[in-house]
Amino acid sequence: MPTTIKIDKLPTIRRFPAYLNILRKLEREGKEFISSGQLAQIKNIESILVRKDLELTGISGTRKIGYYIPDLIRAIENFLGWGETLDTFLFGVGQLGTALLAYKELESHGHRIVAAFDIDPAKIGKKVHGIPVFNVLKAPELLVRLNVRLAILTVPDEVAQGVTDILVASGIQGIWNFTSVILDVPEGVITQKEELLSGLAVLSMKMAGGRESGESMGGL
Amino acid sequence: MPTTIKIDKLPTIRRFPAYLNILRKLEREGKEFISSGQLAQIKNIESILVRKDLELTGISGTRKIGYYIPDLIRAIENFLGWGETLDTFLFGVGQLGTALLAYKELESHGHRIVAAFDIDPAKIGKKVHGIPVFNVLKAPELLVRLNVRLAILTVPDEVAQGVTDILVASGIQGIWNFTSVILDVPEGVITQKEELLSGLAVLSMKMAGGRESGESMGGL
Repeated sequence: MPTTIKIDKLPTIRRFPAYLNILRKLEREGKEFISSGQLAQIKNIESILVRKDLELTGISGTRKIGYYIPDLIRAIENFLGWGETLDTFLFGVGQLGTALLAYKELESHGHRIVAAFDIDPAKIGKKVHGIPVFNVLKAPELLVRLNVRLAILTVPDEVAQGVTDILVASGIQGIWNFTSVILDVPEGVITQKEELLSGLAVLSMKMAGGRESGESMGGL
Repeated sequence: MPTTIKIDKLPTIRRFPAYLNILRKLEREGKEFISSGQLAQIKNIESILVRKDLELTGISGTRKIGYYIPDLIRAIENFLGWGETLDTFLFGVGQLGTALLAYKELESHGHRIVAAFDIDPAKIGKKVHGIPVFNVLKAPELLVRLNVRLAILTVPDEVAQGVTDILVASGIQGIWNFTSVILDVPEGVITQKEELLSGLAVLSMKMAGGRESGESMGGL
């Protein structure tokens, strides 16, 4: 049943950024090779899981030596399409938006925020963490001119759908949605809703422990 | 094999906060009942998945009527241990920390940040979004006095392990880790690392489309 395969693959994809972080750190420290067992230990999950995850990228390790770290980094980046940097717009320069503008990790993961948008005259025309803030009315023109396909949405819930409609009309292809609104978009536009509280749910379950098999879910 | 069960349950737990958001919104709108099919449609996943998720909480719907929304909300809250509010401390009042202090959703999900900690004299003694900021040196005493078991970690990476060591020595039980450091904690202390970039990885895969079964992973 293909549905099962799709669902099974998502946890893998979610783990890839963490693998990248670990591998890049090891590379900076001068390490050249790593086994799935070592990676599993750092990430605190089972090594069979790591091996299966990495198989998806098409790379294979060498017995007793493991994976060549630079190759593994490139394989994961290519698999995620993070080999080259994608220009991104951010909408809503509030607390969370500002935090994301300062979040340097984005760039090392293939995404560069090149412009931010807001409706607050006090913010428009300024730079926040080096990124220019424009009037949201300028977004359609700039989206087309700069051929930006991805938007990060950190606006208040009340205007989330309205801003989305503008983005869709301007040909946006993907929206990383940090609002709590479930966006209505036409087919072909992809949204990813960030559920900040999902991690808290997992943590709560782990802390409550004992509940069924909840006590040893550590590290996943 | 029990391990498989554990791994399989995590996506479920991660979906629960989203279910809660939807159900509370419907309740505010005066709706009383919902079927797994309707919930599946809103969340854009398959209804068999919703039914299986909700089964975990021990609640069962009535044929043709569905679930009584207030009961379903309570069942999920109880399952997650979110029935009563847990006091939490936040460490590191930077951009992300400040955003979390303003994040009202936390409280409706069973967690109240009662105090924040920093080392910056300009922040200590002030209130941020109504929450007092203390010198981090006060943390051990206050952790014990207020019997706080959970900490949110939004400090710079360089000091993440140091602050963690202080928390552990003061008897912390759970750490919601927003740094990119993999924390070293003794057995019994539970950490949950928030991988903000995991969602971006899923979005990238979806936008790249076509790749194997990647194109129809929407909504999961």
